[in-house]
Amino acid sequence: MSGFKVFAPATVSNLACGFDILGFAIYGPGDEITVKKSSTPGVTITKILGCKGKLPLEAEKNTAGVAALAVLDHLGIKDEGMEMVIHKKMPFGSGMGSSAASAAAGAFAANILFGKQLSKRELLPFASQGEQISGGGTTIHLDNVAPSLLGGMVLCRDNDAFDVHRLYTPPGLYCTLIYPHIQILTAHARGILSANVSLKNHTQQSANLGGLIVGLYTSNFDLISRSLKDVIIEPQRASLIPGFYDVKKSAIDAGALGCSISGAGPSVFAITSGTNEAEACAKSMQSAFKKHGIESSVFQSQINTEGAILC
Amino acid sequence: MSGFKVFAPATVSNLACGFDILGFAIYGPGDEITVKKSSTPGVTITKILGCKGKLPLEAEKNTAGVAALAVLDHLGIKDEGMEMVIHKKMPFGSGMGSSAASAAAGAFAANILFGKQLSKRELLPFASQGEQISGGGTTIHLDNVAPSLLGGMVLCRDNDAFDVHRLYTPPGLYCTLIYPHIQILTAHARGILSANVSLKNHTQQSANLGGLIVGLYTSNFDLISRSLKDVIIEPQRASLIPGFYDVKKSAIDAGALGCSISGAGPSVFAITSGTNEAEACAKSMQSAFKKHGIESSVFQSQINTEGAILC
Repeated sequence: MSGFKVFAPATVSNLACGFDILGFAIYGPGDEITVKKSSTPGVTITKILGCKGKLPLEAEKNTAGVAALAVLDHLGIKDEGMEMVIHKKMPFGSGMGSSAASAAAGAFAANILFGKQLSKRELLPFASQGEQISGGGTTIHLDNVAPSLLGGMVLCRDNDAFDVHRLYTPPGLYCTLIYPHIQILTAHARGILSANVSLKNHTQQSANLGGLIVGLYTSNFDLISRSLKDVIIEPQRASLIPGFYDVKKSAIDAGALGCSISGAGPSVFAITSGTNEAEACAKSMQSAFKKHGIESSVFQSQINTEGAILC
Repeated sequence: MSGFKVFAPATVSNLACGFDILGFAIYGPGDEITVKKSSTPGVTITKILGCKGKLPLEAEKNTAGVAALAVLDHLGIKDEGMEMVIHKKMPFGSGMGSSAASAAAGAFAANILFGKQLSKRELLPFASQGEQISGGGTTIHLDNVAPSLLGGMVLCRDNDAFDVHRLYTPPGLYCTLIYPHIQILTAHARGILSANVSLKNHTQQSANLGGLIVGLYTSNFDLISRSLKDVIIEPQRASLIPGFYDVKKSAIDAGALGCSISGAGPSVFAITSGTNEAEACAKSMQSAFKKHGIESSVFQSQINTEGAILC
């Protein structure tokens, strides 16, 4: 195969009651990578568009590059390499899984370029290596990279064992995702979290997680709505997002089943049971941020069931 | 309707990763109550069999009595009453939901005796009043009383709102429940629990809860097995049950999908995917307790999908 483009979507993780274990992909924003074979071994990133020079061109330091290199290494490709142009078609540092999309796209592209030997599921460890470098940490989190690669809503039961599961999601679920133009560092958003949770809050959050999953499998939108609550993480991170509670209230008032922080923020997601409600949420959430003097970008989407695709 | 008998089953709660929110009913052990109308208003308990005099005959202090009284009160029955003989056909203080079975049977019987005006689900608040008195507390826990009344495996999303949900359970799931003849006070088993959980353990336990529910809905026994883990409660309570880890190991070695403490203990349950494995677990668990000098009673059952029944 000569040159081609792949795309891996943005993702919403945590989902109120599923801190570090739940995420889903959306349509629209994401990472596009154009690749072709090269006589130079390894990965050469020739250009990164849409990042204002903020992402490294060195493959070993770049999320997509590391993921692609890991695939090449696994496939034993030594005598040739790949050249990529990364086009970030989504904000980064936004809580929308930007690095996960890069990692998913990088691994996905490398695999196709060299004969599609691995399934998407088999690519997960390599994509996650890419995402790890962006976090600068050793802990693996799959709640963005797994849905970006596989599509759908994903439960990560065990990150180290790559034990991830696509959940059934009933037709009609929509997401409104709003990105306020402010910056939060993931490391900071993670750092402010208390190391402990009260047993009471643990039990309540678990009950909501259970309710959400049962609600999904039984298409019970009322139950989904009652379950989309976060008594642990949201109260600790809300203050990082000016106007968060007003934005959330505006979403609920506009008919959202639930609303919380996407990933580590600052993006905020609302789940609705139809496009009209998604549209209404988009308007009212954007207006609520505006009242706090904050401009924003807004996205509306069904659950993206495809994940990474060849364009 | 003149005299009749009802039966409400024993239950297994907590289910490793579902502390205070998951429970299921089993066939076999439970509470049988024989009732008839009486010209004396209120509830008269004439006899309690199988409790060696350890349960109060005064209806206002008796779990089944309080539950029945609550139903009578709700139905506005003032000029007549009910007489009951309670036959405890299960051990109590065993972690098998003995008080919940009494409460479920009491409420269920009262409703039938006076014209069956309420559904089982509507009886839940009254049954839970009965169970509350046994705990001596003000906190409502439905993870035993809901499955004893409704049958099946139940997720309690919100106890105060009686927001409980019967989960799909795949055919072929069996439970081996072993009651070692030692005593644990629920209040003590609850009292030793730390008020806090690490965020890491919260996340891991949540991931397992999610995995268990997804495993049930997709009939994925391997996933159920990987998910039946308790990193929070079991490590704190295991020392209350001499030989617990040996018993657990013997169950896993005999083919159990998972094994943990039933309710607040001392009973221990194992989940298997067939009768042969359930039988093997029963033998090996009983033998493991015996090595620690502990006699035990053992029960094997499918998930009881009926809950409280008219005999």
